[in-house]
Amino acid sequence: MKPAQAFLGVDLGGTNTQAGLVNETGLLHLEKFSTQAGAGPQDWLRRLGEVLAGLKKKASAAGVELGGLGLASPGVLDRARGMVLSSPNLPLWVGFPLAESVSQACGLPVAMENDANLYALGENRFGAGRGRADMACFTLGTGVGGGVILDGQILVGPLETGGELGHITVEPAGRLCGCGARGCLEAYASATGLKGMLREALAQGRESCLRPGHGVKDIEAACVKGDALAHELMATAGRALGRAINNLVATTGVDLIVLGGGVAKAWPLLETETRRELAARMRMAQASRIKVIRAELNDTAAVLGAAALARQKLESQKQGKD
Amino acid sequence: MKPAQAFLGVDLGGTNTQAGLVNETGLLHLEKFSTQAGAGPQDWLRRLGEVLAGLKKKASAAGVELGGLGLASPGVLDRARGMVLSSPNLPLWVGFPLAESVSQACGLPVAMENDANLYALGENRFGAGRGRADMACFTLGTGVGGGVILDGQILVGPLETGGELGHITVEPAGRLCGCGARGCLEAYASATGLKGMLREALAQGRESCLRPGHGVKDIEAACVKGDALAHELMATAGRALGRAINNLVATTGVDLIVLGGGVAKAWPLLETETRRELAARMRMAQASRIKVIRAELNDTAAVLGAAALARQKLESQKQGKD
Repeated sequence: MKPAQAFLGVDLGGTNTQAGLVNETGLLHLEKFSTQAGAGPQDWLRRLGEVLAGLKKKASAAGVELGGLGLASPGVLDRARGMVLSSPNLPLWVGFPLAESVSQACGLPVAMENDANLYALGENRFGAGRGRADMACFTLGTGVGGGVILDGQILVGPLETGGELGHITVEPAGRLCGCGARGCLEAYASATGLKGMLREALAQGRESCLRPGHGVKDIEAACVKGDALAHELMATAGRALGRAINNLVATTGVDLIVLGGGVAKAWPLLETETRRELAARMRMAQASRIKVIRAELNDTAAVLGAAALARQKLESQKQGKD
Repeated sequence: MKPAQAFLGVDLGGTNTQAGLVNETGLLHLEKFSTQAGAGPQDWLRRLGEVLAGLKKKASAAGVELGGLGLASPGVLDRARGMVLSSPNLPLWVGFPLAESVSQACGLPVAMENDANLYALGENRFGAGRGRADMACFTLGTGVGGGVILDGQILVGPLETGGELGHITVEPAGRLCGCGARGCLEAYASATGLKGMLREALAQGRESCLRPGHGVKDIEAACVKGDALAHELMATAGRALGRAINNLVATTGVDLIVLGGGVAKAWPLLETETRRELAARMRMAQASRIKVIRAELNDTAAVLGAAALARQKLESQKQGKD
């Protein structure tokens, strides 16, 4: 009998890094440490190496064999070279041979992918999308990330922009997005977008119990108190999300949408407008079949997705050899 | 040695039906006849049967074995039952067991798919997208159809709306589309959209050498004469196309876009605004890698795509058995 197989998943974030030991059923063990972005990748690598050594010992004690490591990274990636091309939160990582260095540090093959895509894969394998071949995920956080899963695989495409759902245009002449374009979903349905819209509305003299600098949780609380502006901001975000989902569905035909990230916690406040937008833009028979649900794994989704990607890579290599 | 294999492709249109004999290299023989939509599907089936009998004789004379038939149909399809669910141009076809009847008429297995998806597959196998695993196609005709090809396969998705690129929203509060929604690509970059925008502009008193009822060719001719309104209409259509391509690319990562249909002939008049929109909405490194080219097969793309689908279906069945 072959020994049970497990994989390591690493989620490199601007603030924290998580590393997990994952088997077919899910997370066996999770470690978390401060990325310390200012200290640079070599220093991070040393600390990651220690954490991975600990996880390898745990794997060995549990009698499982390690098949590889998956690495979730923020920013724009050069997948072929396993590098970060640009990342606002990890400037010192740009151009560093990340995949290769991690592979040397742990002695395992490394599969590297964008963190939002791995969040989607994690939810697909272990979370809200379990058992579904096709789905899409929006991570509504500081920004808006996304991932499209088709037949169990992350859609990246030859331009490697697949799943960049935060940059679907929802208002062509609308708010400026961090990417430089106008009217991206991210400019409305992210924490940054909501805070920006709040600031603009208050500057225009709108009445509200909210103040500039208030965030998503404050806006949620103000909705509960019946604050009209707070409801309007959530409605705008919900409408933007509905438009993005409509475009996603007209392109890919997916019928399961999983929402993750901090803003997704406010889904009950977004849902009416999201649904209204879908009903206005689609044939009713289709709009009614679209399931929009919240993510289940939250902080650990990308770690689990990274491990799932490492497994996929190993299995496709085995198939190639057969 | 196995005998050479060929496939039949049928493209059912509101006005004409085309049927072709297709091998790996392309079209061996093509027949065209009037659909006579008012006479209904039974009458059409009788005439199609005669045409297919002729093609089967030609296949036999050429010593090729027929592996199946692919059927391109307009409208919304029930793929599982091989039926048209709704089609403005073929109302009598709705609910008719189309795939089954054609299969009985020709004695071959039938693979049925949406005509725009098969147009895209045809261009992928035999036309402007030859040799590329991933691409998308817009058919800019009376309406706007589309097809997304990923890894050589048509993307339909569980909701079966994949490739409905004409209904990507490009102007959320914009012109009413035939589908009932506002601001779909089809409301701007189709012949109907251009004619509608012309009519509206003239009704608003805009000066132009064009008159209500003029079509795409007239608008093109007016552009050559330097008519400002004509140029503005084409710029609006080009901009709409750029927005749709941006959303498509942010979702799928495809980098090859093939444009078919009558409006695509005016591509030189659309291109500047399409490119401007892509440059404004994407990172330049990516915008510059997106190739937008015109279709090569035009009227026969769907026939060739239908035959290609029949071949795919047979090959995947064989693989399933292996």
